[in-house]
Amino acid sequence: MDVDIGNALAAVASPGVSRDALERLDDRVATAHERIETGRSNDEHGYAALNLPDRTDPDGIRQAVDDLPDLEVLITVGIGGSALGAATIVDALGGARGTDGSQDLETVFLDNVDPVWVNDRLAALPLERAGINVVSRSGTTAETLGNFLVVREAFEAAGVDWTERTIVTTGEAGPLRELADRHGLAALDVPGGVPGRFSALSAVGLVAAAVGGRDLEALLAGAAAEADTLRGSLFECPAYAYGATSYALDVRGAHINAMMPYAESLETFAEWFAQLWAESLGKDGLGQTPVRALGVTDQHSQLQLYRAGPRDKLVTFVRPRETVDRQIPGTTVDDLAYLGETTLGELLTAEFEATEASLAAAGRPSVRVELERVDPFELGGLLYGMEAACVLAGELYGLEAFDQPAVEWAKNATRGLLGGSEAPEAEAVAEKRTLRVER
Amino acid sequence: MDVDIGNALAAVASPGVSRDALERLDDRVATAHERIETGRSNDEHGYAALNLPDRTDPDGIRQAVDDLPDLEVLITVGIGGSALGAATIVDALGGARGTDGSQDLETVFLDNVDPVWVNDRLAALPLERAGINVVSRSGTTAETLGNFLVVREAFEAAGVDWTERTIVTTGEAGPLRELADRHGLAALDVPGGVPGRFSALSAVGLVAAAVGGRDLEALLAGAAAEADTLRGSLFECPAYAYGATSYALDVRGAHINAMMPYAESLETFAEWFAQLWAESLGKDGLGQTPVRALGVTDQHSQLQLYRAGPRDKLVTFVRPRETVDRQIPGTTVDDLAYLGETTLGELLTAEFEATEASLAAAGRPSVRVELERVDPFELGGLLYGMEAACVLAGELYGLEAFDQPAVEWAKNATRGLLGGSEAPEAEAVAEKRTLRVER
Repeated sequence: MDVDIGNALAAVASPGVSRDALERLDDRVATAHERIETGRSNDEHGYAALNLPDRTDPDGIRQAVDDLPDLEVLITVGIGGSALGAATIVDALGGARGTDGSQDLETVFLDNVDPVWVNDRLAALPLERAGINVVSRSGTTAETLGNFLVVREAFEAAGVDWTERTIVTTGEAGPLRELADRHGLAALDVPGGVPGRFSALSAVGLVAAAVGGRDLEALLAGAAAEADTLRGSLFECPAYAYGATSYALDVRGAHINAMMPYAESLETFAEWFAQLWAESLGKDGLGQTPVRALGVTDQHSQLQLYRAGPRDKLVTFVRPRETVDRQIPGTTVDDLAYLGETTLGELLTAEFEATEASLAAAGRPSVRVELERVDPFELGGLLYGMEAACVLAGELYGLEAFDQPAVEWAKNATRGLLGGSEAPEAEAVAEKRTLRVER
Repeated sequence: MDVDIGNALAAVASPGVSRDALERLDDRVATAHERIETGRSNDEHGYAALNLPDRTDPDGIRQAVDDLPDLEVLITVGIGGSALGAATIVDALGGARGTDGSQDLETVFLDNVDPVWVNDRLAALPLERAGINVVSRSGTTAETLGNFLVVREAFEAAGVDWTERTIVTTGEAGPLRELADRHGLAALDVPGGVPGRFSALSAVGLVAAAVGGRDLEALLAGAAAEADTLRGSLFECPAYAYGATSYALDVRGAHINAMMPYAESLETFAEWFAQLWAESLGKDGLGQTPVRALGVTDQHSQLQLYRAGPRDKLVTFVRPRETVDRQIPGTTVDDLAYLGETTLGELLTAEFEATEASLAAAGRPSVRVELERVDPFELGGLLYGMEAACVLAGELYGLEAFDQPAVEWAKNATRGLLGGSEAPEAEAVAEKRTLRVER
């Protein structure tokens, strides 16, 4: 990815960061880079994620996937980092194909336990032509295992042997591994030392893409090429330029980071980024709040706030430089004639440039991240680059970027409420304070 | 809707609002309510939106829709307030049916100009069984009119007469009205005095629901019932309780409002709310930033940040009290046995209560909004209640909630860049400051 931080400079925006301040911050980037490189060479927890492009074995993933029958639908059962990386890749690359290379593959992500929705999805899918991709490192995630038990039963009720069309990605031990062994399911490993939100470039994120026949080698090569750009200066490394600028803007008051891709295919990428940023950096009272946006759509929803609301936002634009295009047909209606002389792609580009400039004209900071196009190589680079940016930001904040301790309380309470444990957290639920205003 | 603000009180959370402060604020709520009632009785710009439940004519909408042939697909071409209300209603009520009452209706929203995505959508749809619902008050919105010209051409290329299957909702004059008149299209009016983001309960939001055979009367009746709850005290009116609490929390530091429904069918509602809140209140350097979230999914993405990050957030939960349910099948795997004694619905409820309590235990404010269930009546009440909450908040901030002046700059620049005008804004685009960090 290429990064342009010109519109985040203090000369343009407030909050903004001066060139001098960036030079000073660059000393800390150099130190952080050394720490990151040490973590990588020792394969330390979390840092190990930045080694995935070299460690992930695309052949192994493809072999496991090749054992599945031909599929028209792949149902991925997972949540959080066990779903978002896979969904991001599938949605970005689109047009996934079946293993025979011809038919379209429909990809479904069961990442919620709403019974209305789960019922509707399962009722609508042709289970006899569907496969199951179930992902949970611990093998105990309540939502994922609950949904998997439901999906399994739905296949049985439809008279379909789910054991021959299920692939499991999980840790070395745990209930899901036990189920895989018991039923002889195709199984892959969640890599050690890699938190879920950093696992898109492992089997966790790649199984769905492999079933769709995507080019895993190109994805990993793009990530590896991005890894080669890591060096101890934000002025020489796009990923660090992004991470350092986001950090510098946050501490200057831009506590919100609106991730706004100008490509529908990258809408899910903004969701993935939001998890990466929130779970890694949201701790100790710190962390920039990610907001998921979409160009041009959110110009008609969020731009008023971004341009004229509180000065607490950095807007991150992500855009591919090349896309296919489509001519807008001409019309004799006067006020629309100019549209007939342009294309949807030119309109999209003009709207992007206009929105970026409109923020700058109002002194609001933004960063532009550019890809050549949305393809496996460039997408691999984008995912890796954002992960490296996040790890760098964690170092600059002085945070432990690789844990998520604050989610344990609710997990314990949920299990306690359902009788799966005697968690004291469950008792606090009943003590809720109320001030109800009712119809 | 019912509202419980107990977990936003200072006794629970920081930031939080004390009961005493709410009592004092209630005097201002009474004054604001008088202003709102005056605006409503005079049908003033914006305030007129709160009269829609009585003004909207469901028969007129149904008659216009009845002129269309039987449809399997409805393509809505609109953006911002011309799409989000309709999408919210269709997504919430689901299972829309064709005009003959049997077949399923597929609803598609073309609310972006990404050519890759527009091409893919149009190529995948059976145009000979599709209709077009095009919505733009001014009739000049570049994205909507550009897409409409493209869609029209695609129908022509497929040999389908688009004029007999297009319904237009627009203002009294303008290019879209001109096109409707020229081709004899079915046409409905955008109501006067109602900004797009407040127009869900007019033809703008209801045409798609009408084509799907939804119960428009129940939607409007639910909204009317909510209107009947408006009175000059936040302790007696759910909508004002929500609007006043959000305002009170914002000025105490909760500058972010995370809207987190615990129902997949309300995911689009969070998008609609985000536009309502951002465009109405995001001005003069003020306004709470809406964040779109989803329970339980975002517990595995955003909860770490909400519970342990900066104390700058209010979380708004929206949940239906009743849903259909589905038993989780039992398993002999020890660690999962407890799941087999519960249902997906019970798991969802436990997760919701646990998440709400986990925020309270960490002293983070939240508000609970409850519906009986997701049905037309309750949805109408929710949409109306949130609109009234937003109007009240606008009064409390002392803002003009019904305009969106900050988006004009980029619109002018876009048109200038495409040669449709000689806008000076277009020149600023070329003067962009850059600091590029490239691979």
